[in-house]
Amino acid sequence: MLLHEKADQAQSLLAETGLDCWLTFARETELHPDPGIEQVVGAGVVRNSAFLFTAGGARVAIVANFDTSAIRARGVFREVVGYDEDIRGPLLAALQRLGPMTIGLNYSTDDVTADGLTHGHWLLLQQLLSGTPYLDRLTSAAPLLARLRGRKSPAEVDRIRRAVTVTERIVGLLTPRIRPGLSERELAALVHAHFAKLGVAPAWALEGCPIVNSGPVSDLGHTYPSDAVRIEPGHLVHIDLGVRVDGYCSDLQRMWYVRRPGEPGPPADVQRAFDTVVRAIDAGAGVLRPGVRGFEVDAAAREVVVGAGYAEFKHGLGHGLGRAVHDGGTMLGPRWPCYGRNVEAAVEAGNVFTLELGVPTGAGIVGLEEDVLVTATGCEFLSSRQRELMLV
Amino acid sequence: MLLHEKADQAQSLLAETGLDCWLTFARETELHPDPGIEQVVGAGVVRNSAFLFTAGGARVAIVANFDTSAIRARGVFREVVGYDEDIRGPLLAALQRLGPMTIGLNYSTDDVTADGLTHGHWLLLQQLLSGTPYLDRLTSAAPLLARLRGRKSPAEVDRIRRAVTVTERIVGLLTPRIRPGLSERELAALVHAHFAKLGVAPAWALEGCPIVNSGPVSDLGHTYPSDAVRIEPGHLVHIDLGVRVDGYCSDLQRMWYVRRPGEPGPPADVQRAFDTVVRAIDAGAGVLRPGVRGFEVDAAAREVVVGAGYAEFKHGLGHGLGRAVHDGGTMLGPRWPCYGRNVEAAVEAGNVFTLELGVPTGAGIVGLEEDVLVTATGCEFLSSRQRELMLV
Repeated sequence: MLLHEKADQAQSLLAETGLDCWLTFARETELHPDPGIEQVVGAGVVRNSAFLFTAGGARVAIVANFDTSAIRARGVFREVVGYDEDIRGPLLAALQRLGPMTIGLNYSTDDVTADGLTHGHWLLLQQLLSGTPYLDRLTSAAPLLARLRGRKSPAEVDRIRRAVTVTERIVGLLTPRIRPGLSERELAALVHAHFAKLGVAPAWALEGCPIVNSGPVSDLGHTYPSDAVRIEPGHLVHIDLGVRVDGYCSDLQRMWYVRRPGEPGPPADVQRAFDTVVRAIDAGAGVLRPGVRGFEVDAAAREVVVGAGYAEFKHGLGHGLGRAVHDGGTMLGPRWPCYGRNVEAAVEAGNVFTLELGVPTGAGIVGLEEDVLVTATGCEFLSSRQRELMLV
Repeated sequence: MLLHEKADQAQSLLAETGLDCWLTFARETELHPDPGIEQVVGAGVVRNSAFLFTAGGARVAIVANFDTSAIRARGVFREVVGYDEDIRGPLLAALQRLGPMTIGLNYSTDDVTADGLTHGHWLLLQQLLSGTPYLDRLTSAAPLLARLRGRKSPAEVDRIRRAVTVTERIVGLLTPRIRPGLSERELAALVHAHFAKLGVAPAWALEGCPIVNSGPVSDLGHTYPSDAVRIEPGHLVHIDLGVRVDGYCSDLQRMWYVRRPGEPGPPADVQRAFDTVVRAIDAGAGVLRPGVRGFEVDAAAREVVVGAGYAEFKHGLGHGLGRAVHDGGTMLGPRWPCYGRNVEAAVEAGNVFTLELGVPTGAGIVGLEEDVLVTATGCEFLSSRQRELMLV
């Protein structure tokens, strides 16, 4: 079971990241999802709960009595301690018994998927541990969480592959339906019908998944498909689309060009922009391998775009892809303050990234996005690359 | 629109709670939902984002350029500032212009729905504001968030009413289907079929919604319906069920007794337990009115249960109900450490609570849960009370 596989992986990452203990401290996980809970606990909790893994192999869950049954049913924790009124007693007892010198918590200034602990809950933990030696032993478990999330097992990669396959199937079904007069929103509705028929969920909130852009006046970015913007001859049609299969995501951008009467293909400037985007993805993929740092991969692609005379794209070349569509960990992005240390980190085998960028043209945005797996020596495309504009 | 109604309410709560400015600082809201975003922004964001309301009436959103369009589309913020690389410049510029002396953030040690800010993001905000006078002006916006969430408008109460009505309709449809031999999981599957037919979502994660308990050996608490436990003559059948309608939740517990051959009704001990639970809810409702403190309402019901010779129920009598099924704010619970200050707070008109408790019997758990609205002078039941065991 994937849950147990990730729990074993977490256990082995403790020694590697220099932690004696990893402590996920959580509550009301329906309101506050925590990457720690999601990856290795697999069931929600209501009242203050503590999940401890130690480098020595101990696994202890301390949860309210009415939550013990669901946690036990998952089978990850050898010891499940229930309480009714106050977690302090059983939490201190467990820490005294385990005696960790370093205790990693789920927070990070930069890596969002390592930042599940809320500030109020952190303050509460300070109160609970006040007067004990454990207060000074707290630190961030971000290095553990980044590796746990980033190093995908074969079972995880398989789920992402299946999500990519479903996405490509939907793209294939769209091609014969794309025609002048169809609005962006109508195209999105076709995609939603395929989601329902194929029994898959969108990888992000449905109202903005897919993003649809037709022609030069469409709103770019994380927008909602428009009723007013309709496909016209001479438009580039662009979608950004992802699905979730067995809890894992895909994220692809695909493109069509709608020919004017008599046009054999896209105008030269559109073709040049498209080819530049393809070359930029080639360049990024060309340097993507274990050990390279995030910003170096981004720079390789960015250089192609700038070298061809286009403006820099205003986002990173790629983000992690997995349980979340923005899966945290190492980011393939420029050294901008908004990306913090995520772009300084080294790429590892088993990481899955998007490679994505866009350049504007008079016919609309040219944007492509592929999904890739980092292998021992380079990278493998999980998606069937788009190397030609699809023509309508 | 409800979003604008809540934004106006937030604005008016600033003066009441002594804040010059309410700052929701958020990122990757698909991974980290924030009650501030949910209530008054209404669209997700990816990169570091700041949403400011001031007592003077200013409303400023600072978000990445690719997020501006979705935020503008909601129409809540008069000013939407976009950025590409670093939020620091526009954030400091806005603070300098607005000059707040107190800035409330979304964190709370006790109230989970006021605790959307993650600890890592709080640390990042400390870095961004370092060397500015605003660092020392940060405080918790929990009092504002508790009132914003707790004081339901007529439009919010209407949505909860509709969720309750749908839930009661499902309960009515179940009654003729309950019979010996049906497993807990099969009964849950019937409920899920009604969810699909009626087009409603469960109020909490589907695999545990409804909770189903048949007879004395069923697992209690936040559990999953069992394949192995089947309804038998002499069993109490208990469900805990909620749905979400237009973003607002219901949460009800309902009961049946399955008669043995020749039995006219439940055994005396079961009837006595049931009547005690009904009386305890009567007692809680009897003292529920604006100004009473959470623990006082709980105590009134708890006294009935203990007075009748039963063990205390191991949870609070009631929780807030609204956008979340555990909606935060004032809690009707005992003064246990796990509830913190939530049970010390005063009840307000417009609050919606559950009133729920259970006692064990030899035939299974007797548990009832009703949903109530606090009025100017007392409370009104939003659910049609269960005052008699339904007989099978």
